[in-house]
Amino acid sequence: MEVNMKRIAAERAVEWIEDGMTVGLGTGSTAYWAILRIAERVKEGLNIRAAASSIRSEELAKEHGIPFVSLDEIDRIDLTIDGADEVDPDLNLTKGGGGALLREKVLAAASDKFVVIVDESKVVSSLGAFPLPVEIVPFGSRLTLNALAALGGQPTVREKDGQRFVSDNGNWIADCRFGRIANPAQLSAELNRIPGVVDNGLFTGMTTAVVVGKLDGSTSVLRP
Amino acid sequence: MEVNMKRIAAERAVEWIEDGMTVGLGTGSTAYWAILRIAERVKEGLNIRAAASSIRSEELAKEHGIPFVSLDEIDRIDLTIDGADEVDPDLNLTKGGGGALLREKVLAAASDKFVVIVDESKVVSSLGAFPLPVEIVPFGSRLTLNALAALGGQPTVREKDGQRFVSDNGNWIADCRFGRIANPAQLSAELNRIPGVVDNGLFTGMTTAVVVGKLDGSTSVLRP
Repeated sequence: MEVNMKRIAAERAVEWIEDGMTVGLGTGSTAYWAILRIAERVKEGLNIRAAASSIRSEELAKEHGIPFVSLDEIDRIDLTIDGADEVDPDLNLTKGGGGALLREKVLAAASDKFVVIVDESKVVSSLGAFPLPVEIVPFGSRLTLNALAALGGQPTVREKDGQRFVSDNGNWIADCRFGRIANPAQLSAELNRIPGVVDNGLFTGMTTAVVVGKLDGSTSVLRP
Repeated sequence: MEVNMKRIAAERAVEWIEDGMTVGLGTGSTAYWAILRIAERVKEGLNIRAAASSIRSEELAKEHGIPFVSLDEIDRIDLTIDGADEVDPDLNLTKGGGGALLREKVLAAASDKFVVIVDESKVVSSLGAFPLPVEIVPFGSRLTLNALAALGGQPTVREKDGQRFVSDNGNWIADCRFGRIANPAQLSAELNRIPGVVDNGLFTGMTTAVVVGKLDGSTSVLRP
């Protein structure tokens, strides 16, 4: 039987959720398994409330009976569990392959603990092989894309099913290829300084722990 | 007769526009006078094309016969003329009292020359007496406002006619009171690092010249 590395990592991370916590739910295929496991623990009596980084995750959580809270009602999140596209040795991440990077980053920044779950293929020596998503406002996008190109990003505006992809916030995603990213924190600041850039998929200095699911069925935990 | 300081500053700045230029039009009461004067020069034979930072300025320009170009058709702007709420001795600015800060910043960043027109009351020894507008995404706004408060911004979500004000990009404006802003470039970077902040009204290192209209009817030009 094939090992589901994402699932075993997600289930291990969910063990860290404690009674009374406000829990942030990420988006994507790994977060999917976390939400299903949280739902099981809620049925077993775990008392939590959850907030989500996407409408999809919110619906999935509600469908499975996880008590929900609006972000407008809370000031902090105790623990957020989310996936990543790449993890480097300093636990910097690239995220946003699914297009929800901004909302995921809002949750992560408001969380006391930010736990990332990945399969072992996502653990890399340096970020950059995976395209870096940058969320941009439609107004003046040609100028913003020029600025991204000037930074070396070779941007491509994301499409889905032949249409321009639009984020949950009404913005566009420019997938950038910077090659190897030597200094993620610096690149992130340079990107966010460009007017027209809302945010980018580099998550630096935010990660509490990474749970890695391995092909042999085991998990390991990386800490900064 | 009362001197219109904004108007005399605007008219002096418009003298710098040359045949063949692509011109960026700002937003607000000072930009209004610049647009009217540009329209006169176009009627006199000046050959330019213009782009604007707001629907309001675009409509005003078109109404007065200024040839218009979409930002999707150009890679650079030769010269942009816009107002400001405050100008410090290093020609850093606060802008966005009118709520168009993001679009104004996109234009300024794409401009070879960025000329600011103000009346002399806007020239200050340090920024911060005027509230600093910060454009934020509605999603997770409570958390974003918490982050602005943690930086000392005392944010208030802007309202207009009893309704929440919504920017041309579908976002909200948090007016912040930081008091005296000692290091505008650093504060701007810190604000843009907050997930949920799209951009802020600090324009640092962008200004080519400031034309100041004075109560005595004269103008002066400040350069970095």
